[in-house]
Amino acid sequence: MRFLLLFFALLALALADLFTAIADMEHMLGAEKDVMGVIDQYIEAERERLNKLRNFADEYSKRNAHAEEVGPEFVTNPINAYLLIKRLTSEWKKVEDIMRNNAAEKYIKNITQNRVNSQVRFPQEEDLSGAATALLRLQDTYKLDTHDLAHGVIDGEKVGKPLTAHDIFEVGRAAYNQRDYYHTLSWMQVAMNKLENEEPKSMEESEILEYLAYSLYQQGNVRRALNLTKRLAQIAPNHPRAKGNVKWYEDMLQGKD
Amino acid sequence: MRFLLLFFALLALALADLFTAIADMEHMLGAEKDVMGVIDQYIEAERERLNKLRNFADEYSKRNAHAEEVGPEFVTNPINAYLLIKRLTSEWKKVEDIMRNNAAEKYIKNITQNRVNSQVRFPQEEDLSGAATALLRLQDTYKLDTHDLAHGVIDGEKVGKPLTAHDIFEVGRAAYNQRDYYHTLSWMQVAMNKLENEEPKSMEESEILEYLAYSLYQQGNVRRALNLTKRLAQIAPNHPRAKGNVKWYEDMLQGKD
Repeated sequence: MRFLLLFFALLALALADLFTAIADMEHMLGAEKDVMGVIDQYIEAERERLNKLRNFADEYSKRNAHAEEVGPEFVTNPINAYLLIKRLTSEWKKVEDIMRNNAAEKYIKNITQNRVNSQVRFPQEEDLSGAATALLRLQDTYKLDTHDLAHGVIDGEKVGKPLTAHDIFEVGRAAYNQRDYYHTLSWMQVAMNKLENEEPKSMEESEILEYLAYSLYQQGNVRRALNLTKRLAQIAPNHPRAKGNVKWYEDMLQGKD
Repeated sequence: MRFLLLFFALLALALADLFTAIADMEHMLGAEKDVMGVIDQYIEAERERLNKLRNFADEYSKRNAHAEEVGPEFVTNPINAYLLIKRLTSEWKKVEDIMRNNAAEKYIKNITQNRVNSQVRFPQEEDLSGAATALLRLQDTYKLDTHDLAHGVIDGEKVGKPLTAHDIFEVGRAAYNQRDYYHTLSWMQVAMNKLENEEPKSMEESEILEYLAYSLYQQGNVRRALNLTKRLAQIAPNHPRAKGNVKWYEDMLQGKD
């Protein structure tokens, strides 16, 4: 337990470097509560949009059915002809407009403005990779087990929630970006195991496979790298690099490199 | 009745010029039936998106509440710190993505493709103004009453559905585009009367007001044009031309022109 306290104190120092506003956490989380209200409003606005579309489409459909029932003579009446053409042009355009008119930008802008008004610095992408790097650094220093960390266990004690496959993957990616393929391999393997039992899945298997294969190759296991890349090419046939990588690993195994 | 038949035969000729594919009406309406199925699919997909957003936002909120409950020491735990920062960055981004990810373009593309596959020529904007012009030409030739036409009545006989304010407005606009201010005035006035009793409204009053005022001015009634434009400036304070037009009509009444 003493070990854990020291450990956390060290981490707090490490994070202070990375994300100076962490002390503002309570303000930040307070500000985030308003966000939920804005999302509720957005969902309500979108439901209304869909109802409006439903009504409009029903009306459109009903009128077309009537015209079809009457048959071709329907349009020999000048008013019907005008209304039919109007429906198929400007009213159809209105249906398209309702379909396109997602209110997301307006509400996202509101949320961004709320955050600015809260005067709290929210974390950015670089803070995320910083926090992942801090975790890796501590893992290295204290020889912590990846599987334990990923399950919220430090030094035999449960100290946090278990991570999702995507949480684990992001730590692996931080290791990859530092060319630390030893830790990349270890985190990507745990991410893959986690993903297998996850429901709903927090990410796609194909995202992990490429990192996993490359770190295996870097650790000298070309044959397994090849097998995983073949699997990647199979489950993601449009992957931009999978087929090329299969060939690259195959050539390597045949000593063509 | 004989008059009506002749009338409709003439109209059929007039429309044949405007919209040669009108004979294909049944095919066209048949093809439109598929559209309803696509719109249903779209609404279903959008509802699923909103449910996903709801679940994601609830989860996001629940976790933030837990962190706030624990207080600042929450982040002295390295796993919590990492997860909190991840939530406020990449998971928040996912919420935004779900909000933005309106499927409209995909479904509209499907509908457009259906129409292309049906090999029927659908009417375009110019067919609509053509049909409105045909209606005006016949009104002129046979001295038909605007109010009657707008209520689906020709020569005392009910031959079609009543038009909405927006249907009537579009005929008025066709007259305006031909600088036929006599008919513009008459149709815009009927559109305005219709709109007053309409629920739900098929358009905004402000759209009619500018056309109505301008046609009144063209017919010599500057004072009423000014009054309606004042009303426009009042109900649509951001209208791009209302305030300028008020001044223009005022100057005209004071003989400054």
